Amino acid sequence: MKKLINDPEHVVAESVEGFGWAHSDIVEVRLDPLLVLRRGGAVAGKVGLVSGGGAGHEPLHAGFVGVGMLDAAVPGAVFTSPTPDQILPGLTAADSGSGVLAIVKNYTGDVLNFETAVELAEDEGVSVAVVVVDDDVAVKDSLYTAGRRGVAGTVAVEKIAGAAAERGDDLASVAAIAARVNANVRSMGVALTACTVPHVGRPSFDLPDDEVEIGIGIHGEPGRHRIPAASADVITGMLLDPVLEDLEVARGENVLLFVNGMGGTPQSELYVVYRQAHRLLEERGIIVARSLVGNYVTSLEMQGASVTVLRLDDELTELWDAPVHTAALRW
Amino acid sequence: MKKLINDPEHVVAESVEGFGWAHSDIVEVRLDPLLVLRRGGAVAGKVGLVSGGGAGHEPLHAGFVGVGMLDAAVPGAVFTSPTPDQILPGLTAADSGSGVLAIVKNYTGDVLNFETAVELAEDEGVSVAVVVVDDDVAVKDSLYTAGRRGVAGTVAVEKIAGAAAERGDDLASVAAIAARVNANVRSMGVALTACTVPHVGRPSFDLPDDEVEIGIGIHGEPGRHRIPAASADVITGMLLDPVLEDLEVARGENVLLFVNGMGGTPQSELYVVYRQAHRLLEERGIIVARSLVGNYVTSLEMQGASVTVLRLDDELTELWDAPVHTAALRW
Repeated sequence: MKKLINDPEHVVAESVEGFGWAHSDIVEVRLDPLLVLRRGGAVAGKVGLVSGGGAGHEPLHAGFVGVGMLDAAVPGAVFTSPTPDQILPGLTAADSGSGVLAIVKNYTGDVLNFETAVELAEDEGVSVAVVVVDDDVAVKDSLYTAGRRGVAGTVAVEKIAGAAAERGDDLASVAAIAARVNANVRSMGVALTACTVPHVGRPSFDLPDDEVEIGIGIHGEPGRHRIPAASADVITGMLLDPVLEDLEVARGENVLLFVNGMGGTPQSELYVVYRQAHRLLEERGIIVARSLVGNYVTSLEMQGASVTVLRLDDELTELWDAPVHTAALRW
Repeated sequence: MKKLINDPEHVVAESVEGFGWAHSDIVEVRLDPLLVLRRGGAVAGKVGLVSGGGAGHEPLHAGFVGVGMLDAAVPGAVFTSPTPDQILPGLTAADSGSGVLAIVKNYTGDVLNFETAVELAEDEGVSVAVVVVDDDVAVKDSLYTAGRRGVAGTVAVEKIAGAAAERGDDLASVAAIAARVNANVRSMGVALTACTVPHVGRPSFDLPDDEVEIGIGIHGEPGRHRIPAASADVITGMLLDPVLEDLEVARGENVLLFVNGMGGTPQSELYVVYRQAHRLLEERGIIVARSLVGNYVTSLEMQGASVTVLRLDDELTELWDAPVHTAALRW
């Protein structure tokens, strides 16, 4: 294992500390427990947005803290849920009195720990709504999940719910918007290589030199099947087809097309995937109204990509377009 | 070799075509010869900025085309200079009558091909100034270079010269600003792994599992020396020290600190490097006034990073802060 780290036990804290120094105009970092907060704290009259989960998926979630998106991100150890004790101060710090929406990816540990933290926060008088993101169509139930996994669609939930909170929607409305995004977003990914968790020191799984894993999870959980390495165009079709089938997008509908890199994929390859996904959507008469391409929900240095489609209506489009000022997403 | 590509011969064109579709609000892509142009074409009264070079370093340069940065980018084949015939239409398309600044990384092929294209453009009545970027302190002369190589500092040259052009500076002034940035920026990189050029199909060099290459070039050219894999903090010091020594930054001066990923490095590791570089600069009394962290000048899927320091004065800071709207840099 070769990594640009010091002690594997301290990699998350050191990385988040560096992140805080690099983006001190946007965030404030607390080290004990580890938290990334929107600079200036909770905004009066605004619903707070909190997300979190295991580290190793950067820029998710800390990279999405800032104006128009999250108020707090809670990073756990690599691929490990943050504890309730760590989530709780994230929830309270994000509350200005207007309540907090917790955005949780659907993994058993995350769901349980957030549930416990939410109970504790409510005991302290914070109103909390929860949305569980489960956009991955690859598998139903998996190594760490009951039901579908939450993957790259989380970015859309955080961006759009963040814009709704920023314009002044109340907690019930922000939660409803987040649920609407989750209901209309689907993803599926592929891995070309495994990744290595620092404190484990060996690749999470074995993938032969001539095979790829279709439907991979963002922690390297098994997908649907392994196939001999194929062309980008063939693989893109194998990712997009189940997404569209599950989402039942109709001809003439507008979508956001999001091609996400798993961390170790050259950007040029992501655009080759984007090109084919865009072509396949156009062939079906689906309108690619918005797009996003890049490393947003990663699995350390894994090579691979995922394709996410979000069905857009006018309101979701307007909220997607609303200004955002975070380390990883800015317009 | 596993890559998300189709035919290795078409990967650059397909990727650039996908890039153009994903960012059609910012750029226009021409496929023959391959060119990425600022949407809407040359801006009346504004000096045009053109850069280019081998593909495989994305988002450089196409990701920096747009308001406040480049007017045209000319991508060659992977790690191969674009031809004069391809550069020429980039230069003419970027000219609104106010002249064009060509920003060229210091590699023999790029310098020669741009020189030829500049002569041809001048024959057609376009005034062209050239700045050659050579910020890499690792080696003097190398596999593809007489003198120092141009690496991540190119981003600073393109951003700051782009802002000078956008505010209406004339060609001589924009060229002088670009030269001033180049005179005040230095970089050095490290590779943990090699990358594989698609049409070659095998890694560019061999790097044992327990060694890293200090001073690597962005095409995998040899650096200064190989060392046994060390901690991020040790490696960061080995990159930063020669940069500061060469740049002769004094206590109390302001700098931009830029930690660049080579393409396959997890973002969390880049922030571990950033943290240590920031600490080392502060220890020397140097003020980190601005920062940038991410994959901006890559080498396909190479794992590694580079550290760039730019000495800032008030004008360079103001131009760095000026609005930019490109696919890869936006504020």
